[in-house]
Amino acid sequence: MPHIEITNGLPGISGLFAQRPDTAGVLSQLAETLLRSGPSPLSRGERELIAAYVSHLNRTEFCAGSHSAFAAAQLDGGTELVAAVLADVDAAPVTPLLRTLLKVAGEVQAKAAPVSAAAIAAARAEGATDAHIHDTVLIAAAFAMFNRYVNGLATEVPADGAFYDAAAELVVNRGYEAAR
Amino acid sequence: MPHIEITNGLPGISGLFAQRPDTAGVLSQLAETLLRSGPSPLSRGERELIAAYVSHLNRTEFCAGSHSAFAAAQLDGGTELVAAVLADVDAAPVTPLLRTLLKVAGEVQAKAAPVSAAAIAAARAEGATDAHIHDTVLIAAAFAMFNRYVNGLATEVPADGAFYDAAAELVVNRGYEAAR
Repeated sequence: MPHIEITNGLPGISGLFAQRPDTAGVLSQLAETLLRSGPSPLSRGERELIAAYVSHLNRTEFCAGSHSAFAAAQLDGGTELVAAVLADVDAAPVTPLLRTLLKVAGEVQAKAAPVSAAAIAAARAEGATDAHIHDTVLIAAAFAMFNRYVNGLATEVPADGAFYDAAAELVVNRGYEAAR
Repeated sequence: MPHIEITNGLPGISGLFAQRPDTAGVLSQLAETLLRSGPSPLSRGERELIAAYVSHLNRTEFCAGSHSAFAAAQLDGGTELVAAVLADVDAAPVTPLLRTLLKVAGEVQAKAAPVSAAAIAAARAEGATDAHIHDTVLIAAAFAMFNRYVNGLATEVPADGAFYDAAAELVVNRGYEAAR
């Protein structure tokens, strides 16, 4: 049971957004900027994959399920690729650059400390620019927030996994602000 | 040295905001909503105190210094009260309700897991409403993000602590969007 009353019956952040529209607006805009509309050398699918990976590391089922679906809908490898990354980032069939960025994201997930020089050097060796590193760190940091918001308040997960596919259809086609 | 080039010479999140105005806008709006302009049963000083406390636990000197100054400027106890909370939340002269909320924030800082039933019950026993709990969890979660952004990219701290007092003057009088 959630720690606060959710009168709309919606799971995860959907329930929190409906309950608290005053904070939902800017949180949706943040997701839209970081994962879709903002300029980035990372594709929308790659940005969603970082979000899914961090949410998985944080054991936040709602966010991992949602962003896995959003990533799968926007990456050539689809569901199988996302599952492979969540299962073993070292073995997954992603580009060498994306693999190093996922490692950077994993360090940001783990603690609020400087990313290691080794992880940054590995990403640079694969061609990472300042924008790749900045966007990866900020997306991973943002999911330290979203995951804590969703898990901290003990929100519910959807009764049916089809919820994530329906959300993906809305987010991929119309964006985060339309989806809330 | 920061992990990405900061061409403006500014410390902490100020340097990141100047370097990346595309993401600075919505991040400033989020801080403004959560800590100042949004509706909340918590005063601006109390919200800044939660931000300072979480930043202190995350060992993010720039954010702890900034939000300690912003809290001190808006709380009757000023600098001494903020220092007492950071030194020992159990002994600090805050209200019983605020102490329980700081404990909730500390749990959110530590990990992306449901806040314990004991911490929620302690807050309820001191009169916490759903809004108190929601706002505390979301502010603590937001600083899991801001702290990781600032520390993850290995940004600099100000050469002079007067930087925080100047920032406090701007934020307290004109808000986060004017201050960036």
